[in-house]
Amino acid sequence: MPMDAANCALPEFVGTAVLDTIGLVLPSIDRTLLDHMPLPRQYPAIGSLSSRSGAAGQIVAVDDAVKATNTDILSVMLPRDSKGWGGHGVHILLGSDSVADVRYAIQMALDLTEKYAGEVYLNSAGHLEFAYSPSAGPAIQAAFHAPLGRAFGLMTGSPASIGLLISDLALKAASVDLVRYYDTDHGTSHTNEVIVTLSGDASDVKRSVLAARSAGLQLLSSLGEAPRCVTTPFLTED
Amino acid sequence: MPMDAANCALPEFVGTAVLDTIGLVLPSIDRTLLDHMPLPRQYPAIGSLSSRSGAAGQIVAVDDAVKATNTDILSVMLPRDSKGWGGHGVHILLGSDSVADVRYAIQMALDLTEKYAGEVYLNSAGHLEFAYSPSAGPAIQAAFHAPLGRAFGLMTGSPASIGLLISDLALKAASVDLVRYYDTDHGTSHTNEVIVTLSGDASDVKRSVLAARSAGLQLLSSLGEAPRCVTTPFLTED
Amino acid sequence: MPMDAANCALPEFVGTAVLDTIGLVLPSIDRTLLDHMPLPRQYPAIGSLSSRSGAAGQIVAVDDAVKATNTDILSVMLPRDSKGWGGHGVHILLGSDSVADVRYAIQMALDLTEKYAGEVYLNSAGHLEFAYSPSAGPAIQAAFHAPLGRAFGLMTGSPASIGLLISDLALKAASVDLVRYYDTDHGTSHTNEVIVTLSGDASDVKRSVLAARSAGLQLLSSLGEAPRCVTTPFLTED
Repeated sequence: MPMDAANCALPEFVGTAVLDTIGLVLPSIDRTLLDHMPLPRQYPAIGSLSSRSGAAGQIVAVDDAVKATNTDILSVMLPRDSKGWGGHGVHILLGSDSVADVRYAIQMALDLTEKYAGEVYLNSAGHLEFAYSPSAGPAIQAAFHAPLGRAFGLMTGSPASIGLLISDLALKAASVDLVRYYDTDHGTSHTNEVIVTLSGDASDVKRSVLAARSAGLQLLSSLGEAPRCVTTPFLTED
Repeated sequence: MPMDAANCALPEFVGTAVLDTIGLVLPSIDRTLLDHMPLPRQYPAIGSLSSRSGAAGQIVAVDDAVKATNTDILSVMLPRDSKGWGGHGVHILLGSDSVADVRYAIQMALDLTEKYAGEVYLNSAGHLEFAYSPSAGPAIQAAFHAPLGRAFGLMTGSPASIGLLISDLALKAASVDLVRYYDTDHGTSHTNEVIVTLSGDASDVKRSVLAARSAGLQLLSSLGEAPRCVTTPFLTED
Repeated sequence: MPMDAANCALPEFVGTAVLDTIGLVLPSIDRTLLDHMPLPRQYPAIGSLSSRSGAAGQIVAVDDAVKATNTDILSVMLPRDSKGWGGHGVHILLGSDSVADVRYAIQMALDLTEKYAGEVYLNSAGHLEFAYSPSAGPAIQAAFHAPLGRAFGLMTGSPASIGLLISDLALKAASVDLVRYYDTDHGTSHTNEVIVTLSGDASDVKRSVLAARSAGLQLLSSLGEAPRCVTTPFLTED
């Protein structure tokens, strides 16, 4: 956590995490502002979590937090960002009748972002991101249209050719369902990526994602130095 | 002004300003080119001002320049840029029957950009931008749909959660009208921001913007070092 | 070529080039993946070339490669990228019945990218890119709608005002046809550029592009240090 984080005295501030992730709670959002925001339903308490880099990791973190609290996903947006890399950042909105529940969910999502950022890899040429959940919840469903309750996997690579090849290898590595395919012109905010999302049995999805990771690290290394991990990889062979 | 700026001998060159802002005048633009440009009306003389970073400040600068000269706003475009930050740059086109008027307006807008860039704040994690005009003119109207002649205010923050919270606090700080709400998926070029524009009485709008600035500086500091100002802040309490 | 490139042992890896360009061949792409990709027709062998920066140079390189091999252009996508500059990267897909032809075409395109990147110029403020082909082939037609068999030229500059003025000067420098005009809101992925493509006789198109280059280098210098060339300029006066 950045040094100055403890110094933010605003009551709406919850905390920060890696990848320039910040979490806030808006306990009684201005009614006019709420009327202008394109949200499915209005809630008394709104939580907001956004990051400059990474998206899938934070979405899985929020997914765990929503499953553990009495909160609902309101929107998941993917800015073209990643601080000079070729991918997205993320902005996620939660709602609840309870300010305490929103605050707890945002804090939990910030804590889990440190874990799930472990599958973001960067070097001077590009990036890789992998995500995995043994059981997709409402945030993963809202963001990626993945079936609820089944294991979920995501892989992306930039430059986009890397994302394409690792997705191909992932699909060949195990018996999984392809949920969606994304590229620069389809489903992204014009990122330099191919993204594929998977659904299936947990061991199959994990095997697919690990196959993509193994190839992705080799491919990204061909363009520059060995990719560095943002925190600590959390996906391991069973 | 960059060191080499004095060396540009092209007659169309007017000058440069902070935030990689450049101003040019095209005194007799090629007719075929003009036919391909999606402009509302054709003018003999075209002015072009663009920047890599900042947008609202340059728009207010051009607004002042258009009000002071016999020139018209032709278009305001917001590229996804800001040189690695999460926001926009800007490209503004002016038209006039008089080359001299266009040149004068562009020079004036460059000079004022140094002033209005005073409310851009950056650190390694993100950015804030604030804009204020006591009386919105044609450029502010064209860019932001704000009512002519009333005070205008704008605030944005990145990562987007910051922009959302400071907008909420701004709306609660004074009696102002919300003109428009923008986020990654609505009205921006997929930036990592929430942007809100305000209209109202001058003292109310300024109070709102100052409330947003105070909170924004605290929030952005929570993600990294103290934000630095690009030039000199120009908004002060009355 | 980056130091580690020789170390990539994946059989699908072809090679790398400047501007973070990578070339791969997918000899038997997963059928489900192929069904999800929006391609005009399905091919047994797919080639993928993408880069973080530059687009026109790689497209001309692929154009030469497609003309010299039994391969077809499947898609050309332009991510908002350029690694912190205001332009695009590129992702190009080729198809063929023959894996060997795809591999040969991708290798040829990587080799030619080193040449055509010679007309990319960068400084701390922005960039310029110029492209030229004496005879537009299928990749240039697919990417830019330029007529087959005639000379093709492209110019762009960022910040966008530079692209606008150099396009105007190019059109006045010789008798050429304007093929398309692109700006932040029209035909780009929200880049900070004006891009113009030209068609005509070879000597005219080259004269136009050289006029744009001469002005562009002066204008970009006004915002910062002298622009550097990525490799070696290949366009010279006849």
